Amino acid sequence: MDPKTLVAELGNNARVAARQLAAAPVAVRNQALAAIGAAISDHRTGLLEANQKDLERGRSTGLDPALLDRLELTPARIDDLLLSLEQVASLADPVGAMDDVRTMDSGIRVGKMRVPLGVVGMIYESRPNVTVEAASLCLKSGNAVILRGGSEAIDSNRFLGALIESGLEQAGLDKSAVQVVQVTDRAVVGALIAAPEAVDVIIPRGGKGLIERVAADARVPVIKHLDVFATSTSMTAPTPRWPAIALNAKTQRYGTCNTMETLLVSQGMQSLLPGLVDALQQRGVELRGCPRSRKIAPAIAIDATEEDWGTEYLAPILSIRVVDDLEDAMEHIARYGSGHTESIVTEHHGRAMRFLREVDSSSVMVNASTRFADGFEYGLGAEIGISTDKFHARGPVGLEGLTSQKYVVFGEGHVRS
Amino acid sequence: MDPKTLVAELGNNARVAARQLAAAPVAVRNQALAAIGAAISDHRTGLLEANQKDLERGRSTGLDPALLDRLELTPARIDDLLLSLEQVASLADPVGAMDDVRTMDSGIRVGKMRVPLGVVGMIYESRPNVTVEAASLCLKSGNAVILRGGSEAIDSNRFLGALIESGLEQAGLDKSAVQVVQVTDRAVVGALIAAPEAVDVIIPRGGKGLIERVAADARVPVIKHLDVFATSTSMTAPTPRWPAIALNAKTQRYGTCNTMETLLVSQGMQSLLPGLVDALQQRGVELRGCPRSRKIAPAIAIDATEEDWGTEYLAPILSIRVVDDLEDAMEHIARYGSGHTESIVTEHHGRAMRFLREVDSSSVMVNASTRFADGFEYGLGAEIGISTDKFHARGPVGLEGLTSQKYVVFGEGHVRS
Repeated sequence: MDPKTLVAELGNNARVAARQLAAAPVAVRNQALAAIGAAISDHRTGLLEANQKDLERGRSTGLDPALLDRLELTPARIDDLLLSLEQVASLADPVGAMDDVRTMDSGIRVGKMRVPLGVVGMIYESRPNVTVEAASLCLKSGNAVILRGGSEAIDSNRFLGALIESGLEQAGLDKSAVQVVQVTDRAVVGALIAAPEAVDVIIPRGGKGLIERVAADARVPVIKHLDVFATSTSMTAPTPRWPAIALNAKTQRYGTCNTMETLLVSQGMQSLLPGLVDALQQRGVELRGCPRSRKIAPAIAIDATEEDWGTEYLAPILSIRVVDDLEDAMEHIARYGSGHTESIVTEHHGRAMRFLREVDSSSVMVNASTRFADGFEYGLGAEIGISTDKFHARGPVGLEGLTSQKYVVFGEGHVRS
Repeated sequence: MDPKTLVAELGNNARVAARQLAAAPVAVRNQALAAIGAAISDHRTGLLEANQKDLERGRSTGLDPALLDRLELTPARIDDLLLSLEQVASLADPVGAMDDVRTMDSGIRVGKMRVPLGVVGMIYESRPNVTVEAASLCLKSGNAVILRGGSEAIDSNRFLGALIESGLEQAGLDKSAVQVVQVTDRAVVGALIAAPEAVDVIIPRGGKGLIERVAADARVPVIKHLDVFATSTSMTAPTPRWPAIALNAKTQRYGTCNTMETLLVSQGMQSLLPGLVDALQQRGVELRGCPRSRKIAPAIAIDATEEDWGTEYLAPILSIRVVDDLEDAMEHIARYGSGHTESIVTEHHGRAMRFLREVDSSSVMVNASTRFADGFEYGLGAEIGISTDKFHARGPVGLEGLTSQKYVVFGEGHVRS
């Protein structure tokens, strides 16, 4: 089947399922989540075998070891999947929730009702976990979803797709509520992101290349996150909190998108810099600094280049810059930041509030490690992605980001005069 | 200057102004609104003269009389503009408002702060009022705006642009916070909607052709509304409310997007149809009906075609269809509706709630005229457009639709473990 015809068919199926799903009581949606969990639990061996095929093919075609690691399903990872299904089932139902109902001068009552977006198109790489996580969040929020995973995970994804289908059918839901694209033809991605009649929103997850390509060619709205992190520190007097927060932000994990990549140091903080540099180096972090920072802490052995300020290392590397004041720090962030997360360490309330208000990032923090920028830590229960856009959803996207609000009006025969 | 260079320059100016505006206290933004109002009030004669030039050029080039009417500024319309500036100034400040602040298990406090979108690109036709309305809503919500009105209104828009500039300067704000595109080259529209670095969102207002073109070619998010209206009625027993609501929805104004274009009649309501048909015809409304409706009310002289169910007449024409039940009505709406506004007249609570929940439109009403679907009637103070999309904003878009929410995190030295 040619890609456009396939996408049209997937879209038609999804539209029908989406209407049924939006009207389904939360008990039925939760029942589907439980049935999917039971199906996965009952077919662990089969799932691991399917995954093994992907891994063998990956090894024989020389897939990058990091990608192989993300591709692998282990008994522990399957346990995590089952747990996440339970957690999503336990979240409050967002669909149909009513807000802000007020009586207007005309006498009508106006409010907002939360409703599903419709059909979500998910484009991702490697991790078969995403198949289940995305399916569960979409089901809970009343959305149908079309899942297009990477070709390297096709056997795992097909197997999971069949289990999800059986779970949906057990709960009496249309099996097209979750459709795993069965072919690996890349042209399907191009057709999917250009089909507003088939999908209402595209969520790409994976490498920068994938996300940029999807964003550039999409004809439907995209929830995307791109790039790098910065942590900014500015304070009048040294505070003992600072080094511990900075250490955690950089070294707690290196490969995550909420890891600190740049450290801005105010003049008032200089006395604490050498100690922090020492601690970072003990953990094997390579430091690249501006001239002023290297003067204060000569242990910083490498000059930071212009490129360093805009780089997401995803590695034990940190760029360090001394700034004059809060203004200078915010200027740096506006120029080089990715709009993902920035944190300030300060005891000064006014400065903290200015930073919170004026820094234009999806998460802005005071006296906390950037590693907290995460759907679970924010109480969303789970996240389907992190948005660095300002439109629709910003930051970790959970059930609320997968829904919209429509206006509802209650009259008693009211007419407009 | 070539269009791309011009848009890049407008974008750079707007970005600088947007940062200043987002940080400006609401008192300063309100002061700018007052100063713009004063400038317009002081230069009424000049404004009417500039508008006269547009009107004369329009008449000599044979501009459609309806467009000429929309193009015209009268002393009364200027009074309305001044009033709307005052109303926008009196609205609550959306910028910086914090929501949902909760303490998480880790001890951090997480909330959401409302922030401007950044730079709005407004593309519109004819009505110079939009220049002032859009500028005022964007200023109030902390957004910079690039205004690209129609070439037919260029003299009025240039004049208003200069008055707005002087108002901004009097309040100490960057005059690039509101930029009126000074050239009429159509290629500027193409460049603007393809420049995510210059604008964060595009809002087109005007004819269907303009909006469809913008939506198809845009590289940035678009808040748009397209097409037609339906009112659905379904009830077990006839209710005297129904004819009055239907009459109001169709005949209170013919040219607005919240005017009823299709009337669905449940079987239980048939006895009231002939009376309603009579009342509509007395007001000169042409009726086009399905076979069943024509049998019940033979005064319906014209057969409705398939095309009628999806047509926005913007005229004294109404299509009428008899439906079997609520299911049938919702099926019709899902198939032919535009997703703008649907209203049901019923005394049955369960049916009303099903309709509210399952009909997928930006406004869904019970026992009220569709003519209420409007930013003022919903208490938004003013609207910059009506969105029929599900992404970001749905229905009338006011200050909230021009903003987004970012996550804010308060720690006291918290690190992630």
